[in-house]
Amino acid sequence: MYLEQINSPADLKKLTLEQMNVLSGEIRQVLLNELSQYGGHVGPNLGMVEATIAMHYVFNSPIDKLVFDVSHQTYVHKLLTGRREGYINHTVTGFSNPGESPHDFFTLGHTSTAVSLSCGLAKARDLKNEKNNIVTIVGDGSLSGGEAFEGLDNAAVLGSNMIIVVNDNEMSIAENHGGLYGNLKALRDSNGTCECNFFKAFGFDYLYVGEGNDVAALIAAFEQVKDTTHPVVVHIHTQKGKGYEPAIKDEEDFHYSMPFDLETGKSKIDFSAMEDYSDLTGAYLLEKMKVNPTLIGVSSGTPMVIGFHPEQRKKAGKQFVDVGIAEEHAVAFSSGFAKGGGRPVYGVYSTFIQRSYDQLAQDLCINNNPAVMLVFMSGVYGMSDVTHLGFFDIPLISNIPNMVYLAPTCKEEYFAMLEWAIAQTSHPVSIRVPSNGVITTGKVYDKDYSTLNQYQITQQGNSVAIIALGTFYQLGESVAKLYKEKTNVTATLINPRYISGIDELMLESLKKEHDVVITLEDGVLDGGFGEKIARYYGDSDMRVFNYGLKKEFVDRFNVEQLMEANRLTDAQIVEDVLKA
Amino acid sequence: MYLEQINSPADLKKLTLEQMNVLSGEIRQVLLNELSQYGGHVGPNLGMVEATIAMHYVFNSPIDKLVFDVSHQTYVHKLLTGRREGYINHTVTGFSNPGESPHDFFTLGHTSTAVSLSCGLAKARDLKNEKNNIVTIVGDGSLSGGEAFEGLDNAAVLGSNMIIVVNDNEMSIAENHGGLYGNLKALRDSNGTCECNFFKAFGFDYLYVGEGNDVAALIAAFEQVKDTTHPVVVHIHTQKGKGYEPAIKDEEDFHYSMPFDLETGKSKIDFSAMEDYSDLTGAYLLEKMKVNPTLIGVSSGTPMVIGFHPEQRKKAGKQFVDVGIAEEHAVAFSSGFAKGGGRPVYGVYSTFIQRSYDQLAQDLCINNNPAVMLVFMSGVYGMSDVTHLGFFDIPLISNIPNMVYLAPTCKEEYFAMLEWAIAQTSHPVSIRVPSNGVITTGKVYDKDYSTLNQYQITQQGNSVAIIALGTFYQLGESVAKLYKEKTNVTATLINPRYISGIDELMLESLKKEHDVVITLEDGVLDGGFGEKIARYYGDSDMRVFNYGLKKEFVDRFNVEQLMEANRLTDAQIVEDVLKA
Repeated sequence: MYLEQINSPADLKKLTLEQMNVLSGEIRQVLLNELSQYGGHVGPNLGMVEATIAMHYVFNSPIDKLVFDVSHQTYVHKLLTGRREGYINHTVTGFSNPGESPHDFFTLGHTSTAVSLSCGLAKARDLKNEKNNIVTIVGDGSLSGGEAFEGLDNAAVLGSNMIIVVNDNEMSIAENHGGLYGNLKALRDSNGTCECNFFKAFGFDYLYVGEGNDVAALIAAFEQVKDTTHPVVVHIHTQKGKGYEPAIKDEEDFHYSMPFDLETGKSKIDFSAMEDYSDLTGAYLLEKMKVNPTLIGVSSGTPMVIGFHPEQRKKAGKQFVDVGIAEEHAVAFSSGFAKGGGRPVYGVYSTFIQRSYDQLAQDLCINNNPAVMLVFMSGVYGMSDVTHLGFFDIPLISNIPNMVYLAPTCKEEYFAMLEWAIAQTSHPVSIRVPSNGVITTGKVYDKDYSTLNQYQITQQGNSVAIIALGTFYQLGESVAKLYKEKTNVTATLINPRYISGIDELMLESLKKEHDVVITLEDGVLDGGFGEKIARYYGDSDMRVFNYGLKKEFVDRFNVEQLMEANRLTDAQIVEDVLKA
Repeated sequence: MYLEQINSPADLKKLTLEQMNVLSGEIRQVLLNELSQYGGHVGPNLGMVEATIAMHYVFNSPIDKLVFDVSHQTYVHKLLTGRREGYINHTVTGFSNPGESPHDFFTLGHTSTAVSLSCGLAKARDLKNEKNNIVTIVGDGSLSGGEAFEGLDNAAVLGSNMIIVVNDNEMSIAENHGGLYGNLKALRDSNGTCECNFFKAFGFDYLYVGEGNDVAALIAAFEQVKDTTHPVVVHIHTQKGKGYEPAIKDEEDFHYSMPFDLETGKSKIDFSAMEDYSDLTGAYLLEKMKVNPTLIGVSSGTPMVIGFHPEQRKKAGKQFVDVGIAEEHAVAFSSGFAKGGGRPVYGVYSTFIQRSYDQLAQDLCINNNPAVMLVFMSGVYGMSDVTHLGFFDIPLISNIPNMVYLAPTCKEEYFAMLEWAIAQTSHPVSIRVPSNGVITTGKVYDKDYSTLNQYQITQQGNSVAIIALGTFYQLGESVAKLYKEKTNVTATLINPRYISGIDELMLESLKKEHDVVITLEDGVLDGGFGEKIARYYGDSDMRVFNYGLKKEFVDRFNVEQLMEANRLTDAQIVEDVLKA
């Protein structure tokens, strides 16, 4: 195997073209072997095998700097830069990581950022009078994000070496959306010659490579632009999932896949029997759409998060809008749609709602339009890559005036809240969709949440009151139970329901028969929910213990370990309270 | 005067072309009369007189919906939609406002949002099977913002009526920056005919109006696109400051101007004798740049905020980068530049840093690159329009891991912190530049802030400790003084210096001789600084009083009244503490 001889890009440069073609096949085998067993980003990496080889053949990494947007397509880059063993043993991360290798420059995982980051590298290079190539690799899907546009707009006027490789595989995570993609198609169809050219409009030099999975063609193109003295776009047309039929046939499911059977491409995990909030939400919204023609589902490039797979999208027709990877637009669009009298429901991952703080504040909340935001995969039960943490949405969303942020504790309560949120027209409402599995209680929940910030006592007790928010409500139950076992005292258990405000009446009334209040929240403590309770009781005798996550970036954590490190097990909490 | 006869657009429609030309002159006189006396956005409104008349002549507002981006150019629109008296009496705001008139649809003041908001209106119209024109007015300067791109990208594929008027006056607040502007120039130079067309690349129909200050030409163009069934861009070339020589000569200063002498255009306020942090910062950075060739100033379309007026920009040369209105890029670019070994200092208004939360978190803080952010005009002493509040940067910035957010209390301390921030390479550092005037103490301040979260006792006392953050430090002094007068007890006064963390050692040591801790912060309490102190003391006997602003949107407030409403006067605070 040639791959086994490659411990750095220098080894790659010794290969002939023919050998590199063989190497492509070897790499594809290694990728498929690993991906089918352990899961990961399948399509993006299979499509980039040849281009990554060609870049490392032509450029001189790490003197020349390769910056991958999102960096979910860096598996091949890792295999070629001394991390072959690490990739196979899973000791390297799934994204670029400067801690792993001098060939990586940033830890990144959100889309559309790489051109801007590269502009910074290029500017520093120029002021230091150094000479090297800054090569940014960005997918067509990422181009719909505003930050990518801002980056391109500025990269074009840098006035020095800046090579932007646009990896056009005609797909985002799902299909692309936006007028820009019409131009990419026109460019592909004309072999890069059509006069109206998005990239040339900025002033970039432009080169088109129709055969984006052909090592020779790619090497020729990269050699042509190497050491250029001005900004250039190399538009390469690749095939997502290249070399693996199931991934080509079903590009959306194979963008990121859990373990699958290599022969058939079928998932090794049977999801059909599992309930999940995404699919439940999609089914619920589809039913609602039938009776309400102005109800729409909105997504920013991740329609599956809100349960709109291709089948549901087809059924929803005009009542589902995927704006592409464009979270800012999604929020502002939803606000405008609500202002126009429609009912928008925007579904988004916690980590990506971060991309629209100003739109939440300005476009939505100042205008107080009744759009509904569903925030998925938040807290410790969400995603665990450092770039995809869902720990920060509580400080982000709940401190914006006018926003009502709700935290359901189970399936019944979630749908009761969603039903209310869609029906009401008084507030922008966000709902923190539980990420700790679909818990069904069989109980009946309030249908009306219009009296804001009314917490609910679910177990009346004394001495200790546990205010257990959203996904940590079950932890609250368990703390109450253990406390009873240890002390024979029944603690009061409270479901606060509202993240964005406090129930002053209830907090005041707790003073009568309680000395201790415990708050539990599934997110960072700083700027979060519990601190508001601590502030309320600041001038009183009440002892307040805030439980949640420490403000820190953690990567690929184990949930149980993280909970324990933050003293978030029932045993630890009861121990703390008994000590005090 | 024709203007006096216009109480709604219906009255305008009765005028002949000749009369409308006279009306243009009348409106310009009214604008100049008001603006010279009271200040406001001069250039943008003078340039839009004819276009606003023509739009109201052709379209049927409010059935047809005019949505103005930023909406700082809506004075003429207000004059023509029943708010003539309100404009002259200053009872209407300087931005569009649905509370004022059915001709306004959104309260907005940040750039680049209107296309997205309009897409929402258009989608709601289509699903409701209504017929009307959605007309978005967006300036060339606003196009550099990512949200505008996301909006255009989606507007182009809406598939129904959507008219986007691009008001190209060849200026942003300062000059434009970005490759896009080369294409706008090519379009102007070719009278809209050049093949490579940024807007056509998205799939828009496109119409160019070279005479953007000619009512007849504008009416003809708008009539041509009225009731179109697909998305169209009308690119109009206007003159910023049209009709007033001083505003044409100095477009940057007349973008927004304080009161000026109508004859000479000279400001009625003599700024030369006043120190301000923007100019002090610019002068300081220029000196530093001389000895450090990799130190750069960065701005996102507001170079004056960091003291880089045209003269300073010329002096700085390659060491000053204005990226245009592109806050996301500015942060990511700064992170990349720091990673490349340079020292970037990005100056930005508090209200606009909101546009880059995800870039602060992902591009900057996860990577822990040592970029320096200077946050201007924060808190109650900043801007007072509801769309420009500087109350939210503490929850926004200080809860991101790895970020060091500093709050200087005076000029000497600010420059000590800035000096350290630029020299160090361990952390991303933000500094909340004081907005309460340049206060000089003559004292010496620490030069080293590398031991994080070390608060400083500036007056040792007992019983009561006042932790007074940044611009509220002087309020803390005043509270301590008054408390001494009332009780003869010397309170401890603390300058916390660090917003983003607490000094646990000091807080613990306060327990010995203090019963009460007061925190003072110039921003919303929710998610802010004081709540962290309240959390720390939650399980102790310490009484904590958090003072700051209520979480709410306020508009055009009076500082003293807002302070009093939030119980932020020294007398109110001492009263509260004595009561407790």
